[in-house]
Amino acid sequence: MRKRKNSSSKKYFSPETIKRLSLSLRNLKKLKEEKVEIISSDKLASLLNVSSAQFRRDLSCFGKFGKRGVGYKIDRLIKELEDILGVKEEWKIALVGAGRLGEALIEFEGFSKFNRKIVYAFDIDKEKIGKVIKGVKVEDMRNLKEIVKRENIKIAILCTPADSAQKVAEELVSAGIKGILNFSPVILKVPPSVFVTNVDMACELEGLIFLLKNEGS
Amino acid sequence: MRKRKNSSSKKYFSPETIKRLSLSLRNLKKLKEEKVEIISSDKLASLLNVSSAQFRRDLSCFGKFGKRGVGYKIDRLIKELEDILGVKEEWKIALVGAGRLGEALIEFEGFSKFNRKIVYAFDIDKEKIGKVIKGVKVEDMRNLKEIVKRENIKIAILCTPADSAQKVAEELVSAGIKGILNFSPVILKVPPSVFVTNVDMACELEGLIFLLKNEGS
Repeated sequence: MRKRKNSSSKKYFSPETIKRLSLSLRNLKKLKEEKVEIISSDKLASLLNVSSAQFRRDLSCFGKFGKRGVGYKIDRLIKELEDILGVKEEWKIALVGAGRLGEALIEFEGFSKFNRKIVYAFDIDKEKIGKVIKGVKVEDMRNLKEIVKRENIKIAILCTPADSAQKVAEELVSAGIKGILNFSPVILKVPPSVFVTNVDMACELEGLIFLLKNEGS
Repeated sequence: MRKRKNSSSKKYFSPETIKRLSLSLRNLKKLKEEKVEIISSDKLASLLNVSSAQFRRDLSCFGKFGKRGVGYKIDRLIKELEDILGVKEEWKIALVGAGRLGEALIEFEGFSKFNRKIVYAFDIDKEKIGKVIKGVKVEDMRNLKEIVKRENIKIAILCTPADSAQKVAEELVSAGIKGILNFSPVILKVPPSVFVTNVDMACELEGLIFLLKNEGS
């Protein structure tokens, strides 16, 4: 769920489109490793489990693609998608809540592949402060504002327990964070200038169970 | 992303609706703990960051609600939502890949609140096999089929490294698993009778960055 849509005058790309393009990029890179050079949109779409019409629509949103039937040069497509997604730009990320989930996210290979780097972790737990997880130092939450400002960090991953999530979100906003990837099962209240994307694992599981149950009966 | 829609003759509820209702239930339970007894749909919708029209539409999907302006008795609403979501039914879950993310998910309080229980974890790593994480035993992957069948487990959480995800998915399907919550950054190929819900953390982050970038520029 998104807090609000992009309200600029530019064309609006849905977060769903962006997610599909990210997935395409990952798959294309894998194909490149396997020395594949050309791919049809049908083939690529089938890798993504979307219709090829949907896939072409996604790409045509950006006005750079749309040749039908010819197939795409994988190298060129990777470059275009990297431009669209801004993969060459490094984004520094702060992570709050260095528990097990936090540690798992610091180690998660999926972020670094996109040139997104968790540069600092924060916690209030004295046992955790000072630890270094895969090269990422766990700092005292009291230093959040100073470090976020100094390092010009705009994005944070929030994975604290539910009880403290709202308070932490407020601290993040006050430190200058503009986007929060929220893993805590809480709807955060933030100012309209801040984006929140919720990764709600429990709700995803409920959605799956519901499908299963109604299919099975 | 959903592998396919519910193809039964019953009314189709979108996974998005189910996710919102799950979230509503969680919020209602919190309000109940705070001794609130009645809530207006406007208030509830604002807790969920959806319009009150959207929220009433969600509920009216199920044909049990729809009184406007009166407000909902929280107890009754909790009961109805629990019925719809099937929260009273316990669902047993197998988790494959007992790394850091796996451990974090075993400890994740969000699942157990909905009466969903990870009953076994599986791994191929001898260092992990035999460990007990919060009461959940890590079993040898070789015992997957036997245990899944014996315990009649229908749902699995897949959090292995990307390289082994497809192979593991095939083993899950062959063991009788009908729904997979997939945390690995891979599109799984499974038969049409099996549902897959992807929790793609890297793509979520890309979506967030894209919003931020286009807002900021």
